[in-house]
Amino acid sequence: MVKITVGVVGAMGAVGTRMIKCIEESKLEVLDFVPLDVKENAGKSVSFRGTDVTVLAAEKGSFKGIDIALFSAGGEASAVLAPIAAEEGCTVIDNSSQWRMTQGVPLVVPEVNSHAAKAHKGIIANPNCSTIQMLVALKPLHDLFRIRRIVVSTYQAVSGTGLRAIKELEDQTRQFVRGEKLTHSVYPHQILFNCIPHIDVFMDNGFTKEEMKMVNETRKILEDDEILVCPTAVRVPVFRGHSESINIETEKPMPSAEEIKDILAKAPGVAVSDDRENDVYPMPVDCRDRGETFVGRIRRDPTVKNGLSLWVVSDNLMKGAAYNATQIAELLCEKGWIRGEKRQI
Amino acid sequence: MVKITVGVVGAMGAVGTRMIKCIEESKLEVLDFVPLDVKENAGKSVSFRGTDVTVLAAEKGSFKGIDIALFSAGGEASAVLAPIAAEEGCTVIDNSSQWRMTQGVPLVVPEVNSHAAKAHKGIIANPNCSTIQMLVALKPLHDLFRIRRIVVSTYQAVSGTGLRAIKELEDQTRQFVRGEKLTHSVYPHQILFNCIPHIDVFMDNGFTKEEMKMVNETRKILEDDEILVCPTAVRVPVFRGHSESINIETEKPMPSAEEIKDILAKAPGVAVSDDRENDVYPMPVDCRDRGETFVGRIRRDPTVKNGLSLWVVSDNLMKGAAYNATQIAELLCEKGWIRGEKRQI
Repeated sequence: MVKITVGVVGAMGAVGTRMIKCIEESKLEVLDFVPLDVKENAGKSVSFRGTDVTVLAAEKGSFKGIDIALFSAGGEASAVLAPIAAEEGCTVIDNSSQWRMTQGVPLVVPEVNSHAAKAHKGIIANPNCSTIQMLVALKPLHDLFRIRRIVVSTYQAVSGTGLRAIKELEDQTRQFVRGEKLTHSVYPHQILFNCIPHIDVFMDNGFTKEEMKMVNETRKILEDDEILVCPTAVRVPVFRGHSESINIETEKPMPSAEEIKDILAKAPGVAVSDDRENDVYPMPVDCRDRGETFVGRIRRDPTVKNGLSLWVVSDNLMKGAAYNATQIAELLCEKGWIRGEKRQI
Repeated sequence: MVKITVGVVGAMGAVGTRMIKCIEESKLEVLDFVPLDVKENAGKSVSFRGTDVTVLAAEKGSFKGIDIALFSAGGEASAVLAPIAAEEGCTVIDNSSQWRMTQGVPLVVPEVNSHAAKAHKGIIANPNCSTIQMLVALKPLHDLFRIRRIVVSTYQAVSGTGLRAIKELEDQTRQFVRGEKLTHSVYPHQILFNCIPHIDVFMDNGFTKEEMKMVNETRKILEDDEILVCPTAVRVPVFRGHSESINIETEKPMPSAEEIKDILAKAPGVAVSDDRENDVYPMPVDCRDRGETFVGRIRRDPTVKNGLSLWVVSDNLMKGAAYNATQIAELLCEKGWIRGEKRQI
């Protein structure tokens, strides 16, 4: 595999920290590692493969010599910096929502549409966390039975919002035990012992932006403008791991739940966790630091012609963000889809 | 209204305690109040309208002179004691699942099917908590547009399991703050910061018994064997208040979301809580001790012909149990549907 210099933008954040860990554990042949962050964090250090590396400011000029940069710096920073990085010869794998729906920017889940990455022009987008795990679980079924409609309700962890939200849930937990009034600033309401059916801003159609990401990104990734998605996105008091209750209807008849389990067990990136007799099903507490998408509660839905219900859990910081981005970097290196002189085709 | 002697069976439990409070705050004209519980709790006392009342053992002979007894003592106790109580002239309103599907036993949500209570023969069943709040929200839409299919995912509070589960979540919260290992005995897994897609036992069809209650009780209460329900029931780390993400398809075309809000705002027992601009939607933390079913996130679902999505929250110990049972008692007294000499029709 081609040796590369790899950067992480937003290296001090919740996802950035996971990205560094994923790169350490990946198959990437790293010549040099460059952590970048906002100016305020420049000069601090992060550990990479046992060595302390100084964090640099992410700005014009920072990206020269970096082959691939994993971005997790938020949409605004990405809007400015990703084109600069691409201009400086770097391939950006961006975790924000900034570029996902831009024409010409591939939106990639390696298990689902790795072929799309080839056509990149310097920026590849990492999809929304909820969308990634849903599509890893559903792609094998879409290929065989063609999914026409998805009704999905999410149970999303606070780490999807970032380090401040993790701290808010921790703080509220301590306040509760001390009998103090619970305070909040990240979420509009208390999240401890609560469910908040509101992620990202509301759109005119009554859905939230988070929900519309699941609609639009699914269509782009599956290259199927006819697939219908009706999502409800909910924040729950969980630190790590998004859960999804998914109901699908397919065009072609589906086999029994047992046969579908076998299909999913062989699918890339999927771990079937479905043993009712032993209380085994996917749960957030079991998915931490894992790259797989866990699928369980697999059962035929008798209320519609070709229906199926399932329960899907994955670590939102891993497959939903850092691990998926790292897999894209590995894909680019394996296939030689790097820019400049390292490009193989 | 007819004056009655009212009993509560399971008076020391999570729901029993709420039943006493609901009776205190109800329109019932209480001649005498009789708290009953297991033998171990006999001799203890509970407070009723400012007076300490001694708890008696619930057994053969206990029910003579009691006009209406609210039972929340679990299915096994109810299987034995409810027929004895009925035999002794008492009308039982039972919160367990024991009698719900028995032919001849009315299954009643007063806002939905109060007429069904009239035909009782001594036992009336209180439906499953998740079913009650779903049907309070959906009945007005079923009447106008005829619901054909419901896909529902629940976010259920631990108080639905009882006092031991409330303590388990409290204990795990303290253990977390102290940095200790989390212990569990009520649930098969940790519930703090987790989601468990498993409530009651698994059935052969892959659904849980809790999920099948939502299927079967909906049909019985709506007196419509053709209505289709596909549920996923999930326990979340919330003390009080079940939430439900509901998607429906109707036979007749539905109007705009705004018009549906107006319809629901006028419906009995429903409180519309849906003001996106001010981050207002139903949440567990806001429903505590309230009898209403809160409905929000009301939006047309564009992925199916006549589709609608909504988010429904209610206090599972109140409308889901104690308050609904008390409303049934009020209904019996108002209508004179009491047994024996107090019967008016």
